[in-house]
Amino acid sequence: MSLVLDPAAQDLLFREARTANAFTDEPVTDEQIQAIYDLVKYGPTAFNQTPLRVVLVRSPEARERLVSHLAEGNRAKTAAAPLVAILAADNEFHEELPTLFPHFPQAKDAFFSERPVRESNATVNASLQAGYFILGIRAAGLAAGPMTGYDAAGIQKEFLDGDHTPLMVVNIGRPAEDAWFPRSPRLSYEQVVTTV
Amino acid sequence: MSLVLDPAAQDLLFREARTANAFTDEPVTDEQIQAIYDLVKYGPTAFNQTPLRVVLVRSPEARERLVSHLAEGNRAKTAAAPLVAILAADNEFHEELPTLFPHFPQAKDAFFSERPVRESNATVNASLQAGYFILGIRAAGLAAGPMTGYDAAGIQKEFLDGDHTPLMVVNIGRPAEDAWFPRSPRLSYEQVVTTV
Repeated sequence: MSLVLDPAAQDLLFREARTANAFTDEPVTDEQIQAIYDLVKYGPTAFNQTPLRVVLVRSPEARERLVSHLAEGNRAKTAAAPLVAILAADNEFHEELPTLFPHFPQAKDAFFSERPVRESNATVNASLQAGYFILGIRAAGLAAGPMTGYDAAGIQKEFLDGDHTPLMVVNIGRPAEDAWFPRSPRLSYEQVVTTV
Repeated sequence: MSLVLDPAAQDLLFREARTANAFTDEPVTDEQIQAIYDLVKYGPTAFNQTPLRVVLVRSPEARERLVSHLAEGNRAKTAAAPLVAILAADNEFHEELPTLFPHFPQAKDAFFSERPVRESNATVNASLQAGYFILGIRAAGLAAGPMTGYDAAGIQKEFLDGDHTPLMVVNIGRPAEDAWFPRSPRLSYEQVVTTV
Protein backbone atom coordinates (compact mmCIF):
# COMPACT_ATOMS: atom_id res chain seq x y z
CA MET A 1 0.00 0.00 0.00
CA SER A 2 3.03 2.25 0.31
CA LEU A 3 3.51 2.47 -3.45
CA VAL A 4 1.49 4.80 -5.66
CA LEU A 5 2.82 3.35 -8.93
CA ASP A 6 0.08 1.33 -10.63
CA PRO A 7 0.45 -2.40 -9.83
CA ALA A 8 0.44 -3.26 -13.55
CA ALA A 9 3.41 -0.92 -14.01
CA GLN A 10 5.17 -2.52 -11.02
CA ASP A 11 4.71 -5.90 -12.67
CA LEU A 12 5.82 -4.67 -16.10
CA LEU A 13 9.03 -3.06 -14.81
CA PHE A 14 10.02 -5.24 -11.87
CA ARG A 15 7.87 -8.09 -10.60
CA GLU A 16 7.09 -9.99 -13.79
CA ALA A 17 9.92 -8.65 -15.96
CA ARG A 18 12.84 -11.03 -16.36
CA THR A 19 16.22 -11.22 -18.04
CA ALA A 20 15.50 -12.95 -21.34
CA ASN A 21 17.75 -15.50 -23.02
CA ALA A 22 15.56 -16.18 -26.08
CA PHE A 23 13.44 -13.95 -28.28
CA THR A 24 10.83 -14.14 -31.02
CA ASP A 25 11.74 -12.97 -34.54
CA GLU A 26 9.78 -9.71 -34.18
CA PRO A 27 12.10 -6.82 -35.08
CA VAL A 28 12.96 -4.03 -32.66
CA THR A 29 12.69 -0.72 -34.50
CA ASP A 30 14.67 2.50 -34.20
CA GLU A 31 11.38 4.17 -33.27
CA GLN A 32 11.10 1.91 -30.23
CA ILE A 33 14.66 2.69 -29.14
CA GLN A 34 14.04 6.40 -29.64
CA ALA A 35 10.87 6.21 -27.49
CA ILE A 36 12.84 4.38 -24.81
CA TYR A 37 15.61 6.97 -24.88
CA ASP A 38 13.18 9.88 -24.85
CA LEU A 39 11.68 8.47 -21.65
CA VAL A 40 14.76 7.42 -19.72
CA LYS A 41 16.92 10.42 -20.64
CA TYR A 42 15.18 12.25 -17.80
CA GLY A 43 16.60 9.99 -15.11
CA PRO A 44 18.94 11.91 -12.80
CA THR A 45 22.74 11.87 -12.91
CA ALA A 46 25.36 13.88 -11.00
CA PHE A 47 25.74 17.34 -12.54
CA ASN A 48 23.34 16.09 -15.24
CA GLN A 49 26.42 14.53 -16.80
CA THR A 50 24.43 11.78 -18.61
CA PRO A 51 27.52 9.83 -19.76
CA LEU A 52 25.68 6.80 -21.18
CA ARG A 53 26.26 6.13 -24.86
CA VAL A 54 24.57 3.39 -26.89
CA VAL A 55 25.76 1.51 -29.97
CA LEU A 56 23.03 -0.45 -31.74
CA VAL A 57 24.55 -3.44 -33.49
CA ARG A 58 22.25 -3.99 -36.49
CA SER A 59 24.28 -5.16 -39.48
CA PRO A 60 25.02 -8.91 -39.78
CA GLU A 61 28.71 -8.14 -40.19
CA ALA A 62 28.84 -6.04 -37.00
CA ARG A 63 26.79 -8.63 -35.12
CA GLU A 64 29.29 -11.31 -36.11
CA ARG A 65 32.20 -9.20 -34.92
CA LEU A 66 30.46 -8.52 -31.61
CA VAL A 67 29.58 -12.15 -31.01
CA SER A 68 33.21 -13.15 -31.49
CA HIS A 69 34.11 -11.08 -28.40
CA LEU A 70 31.46 -12.62 -26.14
CA ALA A 71 31.90 -15.44 -23.68
CA GLU A 72 30.91 -18.77 -25.19
CA GLY A 73 27.66 -18.98 -23.24
CA ASN A 74 26.47 -15.62 -24.56
CA ARG A 75 27.13 -16.21 -28.26
CA ALA A 76 24.17 -18.15 -29.65
CA LYS A 77 21.51 -16.06 -27.94
CA THR A 78 23.18 -12.82 -29.01
CA ALA A 79 23.57 -13.97 -32.61
CA ALA A 80 19.83 -14.69 -32.69
CA ALA A 81 18.49 -11.63 -30.78
CA PRO A 82 16.38 -9.10 -32.77
CA LEU A 83 18.62 -6.25 -31.62
CA VAL A 84 21.80 -5.92 -29.57
CA ALA A 85 23.01 -2.73 -27.88
CA ILE A 86 26.42 -1.96 -26.44
CA LEU A 87 26.05 0.37 -23.44
CA ALA A 88 29.17 2.44 -22.79
CA ALA A 89 30.37 5.23 -20.50
CA ASP A 90 31.76 8.39 -22.14
CA ASN A 91 34.79 9.38 -20.07
CA GLU A 92 34.88 12.75 -21.84
CA PHE A 93 31.30 13.67 -20.89
CA HIS A 94 32.57 16.93 -19.41
CA GLU A 95 32.83 18.43 -22.89
CA GLU A 96 29.01 18.60 -22.92
CA LEU A 97 28.66 20.01 -19.38
CA PRO A 98 28.42 23.70 -20.31
CA THR A 99 25.27 22.74 -22.24
CA LEU A 100 23.99 20.10 -19.83
CA PHE A 101 24.53 22.07 -16.61
CA PRO A 102 23.92 25.64 -17.73
CA HIS A 103 23.45 27.20 -14.29
CA PHE A 104 27.07 26.38 -13.38
CA PRO A 105 29.10 26.22 -16.61
CA GLN A 106 32.32 26.29 -14.59
CA ALA A 107 31.66 22.71 -13.41
CA LYS A 108 33.51 21.31 -16.42
CA ASP A 109 36.83 22.76 -15.28
CA ALA A 110 36.17 23.09 -11.55
CA PHE A 111 35.31 19.43 -10.96
CA PHE A 112 36.20 17.37 -14.01
CA SER A 113 39.60 18.48 -15.24
CA GLU A 114 41.21 15.17 -14.15
CA ARG A 115 40.60 12.05 -16.19
CA PRO A 116 40.46 9.59 -13.22
CA VAL A 117 37.68 11.71 -11.67
CA ARG A 118 35.82 11.66 -14.96
CA GLU A 119 36.24 7.91 -15.32
CA SER A 120 34.82 7.12 -11.89
CA ASN A 121 31.95 9.56 -12.43
CA ALA A 122 31.23 8.14 -15.88
CA THR A 123 31.20 4.56 -14.59
CA VAL A 124 28.76 5.24 -11.75
CA ASN A 125 26.48 7.59 -13.66
CA ALA A 126 26.39 5.62 -16.91
CA SER A 127 25.56 2.54 -14.82
CA LEU A 128 22.71 4.47 -13.18
CA GLN A 129 21.49 5.31 -16.66
CA ALA A 130 21.91 1.68 -17.75
CA GLY A 131 19.46 0.85 -14.96
CA TYR A 132 17.00 3.39 -16.35
CA PHE A 133 17.56 2.05 -19.88
CA ILE A 134 16.86 -1.57 -18.91
CA LEU A 135 13.60 -0.46 -17.28
CA GLY A 136 12.85 1.61 -20.39
CA ILE A 137 13.17 -1.51 -22.55
CA ARG A 138 10.60 -3.13 -20.30
CA ALA A 139 8.41 0.00 -20.51
CA ALA A 140 8.29 -0.64 -24.28
CA GLY A 141 6.88 -4.11 -23.65
CA LEU A 142 10.18 -5.74 -24.58
CA ALA A 143 12.62 -7.86 -22.61
CA ALA A 144 16.27 -7.07 -21.94
CA GLY A 145 19.10 -9.56 -21.71
CA PRO A 146 22.03 -7.65 -20.20
CA MET A 147 25.43 -9.39 -20.22
CA THR A 148 28.92 -8.61 -18.94
CA GLY A 149 30.59 -11.82 -20.08
CA TYR A 150 32.82 -10.51 -22.88
CA ASP A 151 36.30 -9.36 -23.84
CA ALA A 152 35.95 -5.69 -22.89
CA ALA A 153 39.18 -4.59 -24.58
CA GLY A 154 38.11 -6.26 -27.82
CA ILE A 155 34.68 -4.62 -27.79
CA GLN A 156 36.19 -1.26 -26.96
CA LYS A 157 38.68 -1.56 -29.82
CA GLU A 158 36.15 -2.74 -32.39
CA PHE A 159 33.12 -0.59 -31.54
CA LEU A 160 34.23 2.29 -29.32
CA ASP A 161 37.41 4.27 -28.73
CA GLY A 162 39.81 5.04 -25.88
CA ASP A 163 37.37 7.53 -24.37
CA HIS A 164 34.43 5.11 -24.15
CA THR A 165 34.34 2.15 -21.75
CA PRO A 166 31.89 -0.72 -22.36
CA LEU A 167 29.56 -1.33 -19.40
CA MET A 168 27.38 -4.12 -20.72
CA VAL A 169 25.89 -5.67 -23.86
CA VAL A 170 22.10 -5.94 -23.91
CA ASN A 171 19.99 -8.22 -26.09
CA ILE A 172 16.58 -6.68 -26.81
CA GLY A 173 13.40 -8.24 -28.16
CA ARG A 174 10.09 -9.81 -27.40
CA PRO A 175 10.74 -12.84 -25.20
CA ALA A 176 10.18 -16.31 -26.60
CA GLU A 177 8.49 -19.01 -24.58
CA ASP A 178 10.78 -20.40 -21.89
CA ALA A 179 12.98 -17.32 -22.26
CA TRP A 180 14.34 -17.36 -18.71
CA PHE A 181 15.61 -19.41 -15.83
CA PRO A 182 13.57 -19.70 -12.61
CA ARG A 183 13.75 -16.50 -10.56
CA SER A 184 16.80 -16.52 -8.29
CA PRO A 185 16.50 -15.50 -4.61
CA ARG A 186 16.93 -11.92 -3.47
CA LEU A 187 18.47 -10.66 -0.23
CA SER A 188 15.99 -9.79 2.50
CA TYR A 189 15.32 -6.20 3.53
CA GLU A 190 17.19 -6.87 6.78
CA GLN A 191 20.27 -8.03 4.86
CA VAL A 192 20.40 -4.89 2.75
CA VAL A 193 19.02 -2.01 4.84
CA THR A 194 20.39 -0.92 8.22
CA THR A 195 19.40 2.11 10.30
CA VAL A 196 21.56 4.41 12.38
CA MET B 1 3.09 5.03 -29.07
CA SER B 2 6.05 2.69 -28.81
CA LEU B 3 5.75 2.47 -25.03
CA VAL B 4 3.26 0.21 -23.29
CA LEU B 5 3.92 1.62 -19.82
CA ASP B 6 0.95 3.72 -18.70
CA PRO B 7 1.59 7.44 -19.39
CA ALA B 8 0.84 8.33 -15.75
CA ALA B 9 3.59 5.90 -14.70
CA GLN B 10 5.96 7.44 -17.27
CA ASP B 11 5.29 10.84 -15.74
CA LEU B 12 5.63 9.59 -12.16
CA LEU B 13 8.96 7.87 -12.77
CA PHE B 14 10.62 10.02 -15.45
CA ARG B 15 8.86 12.93 -17.10
CA GLU B 16 7.51 14.86 -14.12
CA ALA B 17 9.80 13.45 -11.44
CA ARG B 18 12.64 15.74 -10.46
CA THR B 19 15.61 15.82 -8.10
CA ALA B 20 14.26 17.59 -5.00
CA ASN B 21 16.21 20.06 -2.91
CA ALA B 22 13.46 20.82 -0.36
CA PHE B 23 10.86 18.66 1.36
CA THR B 24 7.74 18.92 3.51
CA ASP B 25 7.88 17.73 7.14
CA GLU B 26 5.94 14.55 6.37
CA PRO B 27 7.94 11.60 7.71
CA VAL B 28 9.19 8.77 5.50
CA THR B 29 8.46 5.47 7.24
CA ASP B 30 10.37 2.20 7.36
CA GLU B 31 7.28 0.63 5.76
CA GLN B 32 7.71 2.89 2.73
CA ILE B 33 11.39 2.00 2.39
CA GLN B 34 10.56 -1.68 2.74
CA ALA B 35 7.92 -1.40 0.00
CA ILE B 36 10.44 0.35 -2.24
CA TYR B 37 13.06 -2.32 -1.59
CA ASP B 38 10.59 -5.16 -2.12
CA LEU B 39 9.84 -3.72 -5.56
CA VAL B 40 13.28 -2.76 -6.81
CA LYS B 41 15.10 -5.81 -5.48
CA TYR B 42 13.92 -7.61 -8.63
CA GLY B 43 15.95 -5.39 -10.96
CA PRO B 44 18.63 -7.41 -12.76
CA THR B 45 22.34 -7.47 -11.86
CA ALA B 46 25.23 -9.54 -13.20
CA PHE B 47 25.19 -13.01 -11.63
CA ASN B 48 22.32 -11.69 -9.47
CA GLN B 49 25.08 -10.22 -7.30
CA THR B 50 22.83 -7.42 -5.92
CA PRO B 51 25.69 -5.55 -4.18
CA LEU B 52 23.67 -2.46 -3.17
CA ARG B 53 23.51 -1.78 0.58
CA VAL B 54 21.52 1.01 2.21
CA VAL B 55 22.11 2.85 5.48
CA LEU B 56 19.12 4.89 6.66
CA VAL B 57 20.36 7.84 8.69
CA ARG B 58 17.51 8.46 11.16
CA SER B 59 18.91 9.60 14.52
CA PRO B 60 19.68 13.32 14.96
CA GLU B 61 23.18 12.44 16.11
CA ALA B 62 23.90 10.34 13.02
CA ARG B 63 22.36 12.98 10.76
CA GLU B 64 24.68 15.58 12.24
CA ARG B 65 27.72 13.37 11.67
CA LEU B 66 26.67 12.73 8.07
CA VAL B 67 26.04 16.39 7.31
CA SER B 68 29.54 17.29 8.53
CA HIS B 69 30.99 15.18 5.68
CA LEU B 70 28.89 16.79 2.93
CA ALA B 71 29.90 19.59 0.62
CA GLU B 72 28.72 22.96 1.93
CA GLY B 73 25.95 23.27 -0.66
CA ASN B 74 24.42 19.92 0.36
CA ARG B 75 24.33 20.52 4.13
CA ALA B 76 21.20 22.53 4.91
CA LYS B 77 18.88 20.53 2.67
CA THR B 78 20.20 17.24 4.05
CA ALA B 79 19.89 18.39 7.67
CA ALA B 80 16.23 19.22 6.97
CA ALA B 81 15.21 16.22 4.84
CA PRO B 82 12.68 13.75 6.32
CA LEU B 83 15.01 10.83 5.65
CA VAL B 84 18.53 10.41 4.29
CA ALA B 85 19.97 7.18 2.88
CA ILE B 86 23.59 6.30 2.16
CA LEU B 87 23.77 3.96 -0.85
CA ALA B 88 26.89 1.79 -0.85
CA ALA B 89 28.46 -1.02 -2.85
CA ASP B 90 29.38 -4.22 -0.99
CA ASN B 91 32.74 -5.30 -2.39
CA GLU B 92 32.37 -8.66 -0.64
CA PHE B 93 29.05 -9.48 -2.31
CA HIS B 94 30.49 -12.78 -3.50
CA GLU B 95 29.99 -14.29 -0.05
CA GLU B 96 26.24 -14.35 -0.82
CA LEU B 97 26.58 -15.75 -4.34
CA PRO B 98 26.05 -19.43 -3.49
CA THR B 99 22.60 -18.37 -2.24
CA LEU B 100 21.92 -15.71 -4.86
CA PHE B 101 23.05 -17.70 -7.90
CA PRO B 102 22.10 -21.26 -6.94
CA HIS B 103 22.31 -22.81 -10.42
CA PHE B 104 26.06 -22.10 -10.56
CA PRO B 105 27.39 -21.99 -6.99
CA GLN B 106 30.96 -22.15 -8.30
CA ALA B 107 30.65 -18.56 -9.57
CA LYS B 108 31.89 -17.20 -6.26
CA ASP B 109 35.31 -18.76 -6.68
CA ALA B 110 35.43 -19.09 -10.48
CA PHE B 111 34.81 -15.39 -11.22
CA PHE B 112 35.13 -13.35 -8.05
CA SER B 113 38.19 -14.56 -6.16
CA GLU B 114 40.06 -11.31 -6.89
CA ARG B 115 39.15 -8.15 -5.02
CA PRO B 116 39.68 -5.71 -7.94
CA VAL B 117 37.22 -7.74 -10.03
CA ARG B 118 34.72 -7.63 -7.18
CA GLU B 119 35.18 -3.89 -6.74
CA SER B 120 34.52 -3.06 -10.38
CA ASN B 121 31.53 -5.41 -10.46
CA ALA B 122 30.16 -3.98 -7.21
CA THR B 123 30.49 -0.40 -8.48
CA VAL B 124 28.67 -1.02 -11.76
CA ASN B 125 25.98 -3.29 -10.36
CA ALA B 126 25.27 -1.32 -7.18
CA SER B 127 24.98 1.79 -9.41
CA LEU B 128 22.48 -0.05 -11.59
CA GLN B 129 20.54 -0.87 -8.43
CA ALA B 130 20.83 2.76 -7.27
CA GLY B 131 19.02 3.67 -10.50
CA TYR B 132 16.28 1.19 -9.65
CA PHE B 133 16.14 2.52 -6.07
CA ILE B 134 15.76 6.16 -7.15
CA LEU B 135 12.87 5.14 -9.42
CA GLY B 136 11.44 3.10 -6.52
CA ILE B 137 11.40 6.22 -4.34
CA ARG B 138 9.38 7.91 -7.07
CA ALA B 139 7.12 4.84 -7.31
CA ALA B 140 6.25 5.50 -3.66
CA GLY B 141 5.11 9.01 -4.55
CA LEU B 142 8.18 10.54 -2.97
CA ALA B 143 11.03 12.56 -4.39
CA ALA B 144 14.72 11.67 -4.29
CA GLY B 145 17.60 14.09 -3.94
CA PRO B 146 20.73 12.09 -4.84
CA MET B 147 24.11 13.72 -4.12
CA THR B 148 27.75 12.84 -4.65
CA GLY B 149 29.25 16.00 -3.17
CA TYR B 150 30.84 14.65 0.02
CA ASP B 151 34.00 13.38 1.66
CA ALA B 152 33.74 9.73 0.64
CA ALA B 153 36.52 8.54 2.95
CA GLY B 154 34.86 10.27 5.90
CA ILE B 155 31.46 8.72 5.18
CA GLN B 156 33.01 5.31 4.66
CA LYS B 157 34.88 5.54 7.98
CA GLU B 158 31.90 6.81 9.99
CA PHE B 159 29.05 4.76 8.53
CA LEU B 160 30.50 1.83 6.57
CA ASP B 161 33.69 -0.24 6.64
CA GLY B 162 36.59 -1.09 4.34
CA ASP B 163 34.45 -3.51 2.36
CA HIS B 164 31.69 -1.01 1.54
CA THR B 165 32.17 1.94 -0.82
CA PRO B 166 29.74 4.88 -0.71
CA LEU B 167 28.07 5.55 -4.09
CA MET B 168 25.74 8.42 -3.23
CA VAL B 169 23.71 10.01 -0.47
CA VAL B 170 19.98 10.39 -1.18
CA ASN B 171 17.54 12.73 0.53
CA ILE B 172 14.02 11.29 0.54
CA GLY B 173 10.68 12.94 1.21
CA ARG B 174 7.64 14.62 -0.20
CA PRO B 175 8.82 17.60 -2.22
CA ALA B 176 8.09 21.10 -0.96
CA GLU B 177 6.93 23.86 -3.27
CA ASP B 178 9.77 25.16 -5.42
CA ALA B 179 11.75 22.03 -4.62
CA TRP B 180 13.79 22.03 -7.80
CA PHE B 181 15.70 24.02 -10.37
CA PRO B 182 14.36 24.35 -13.93
CA ARG B 183 14.87 21.14 -15.91
CA SER B 184 18.32 21.07 -17.51
CA PRO B 185 18.74 20.06 -21.16
CA ARG B 186 19.29 16.47 -22.23
CA LEU B 187 21.41 15.14 -25.07
CA SER B 188 19.53 14.33 -28.26
CA TYR B 189 18.99 10.76 -29.43
CA GLU B 190 21.50 11.39 -32.22
CA GLN B 191 24.16 12.45 -29.70
CA VAL B 192 23.75 9.31 -27.63
CA VAL B 193 22.75 6.47 -29.97
CA THR B 194 24.75 5.31 -32.99
CA THR B 195 24.12 2.31 -35.24
CA VAL B 196 26.59 -0.07 -36.84
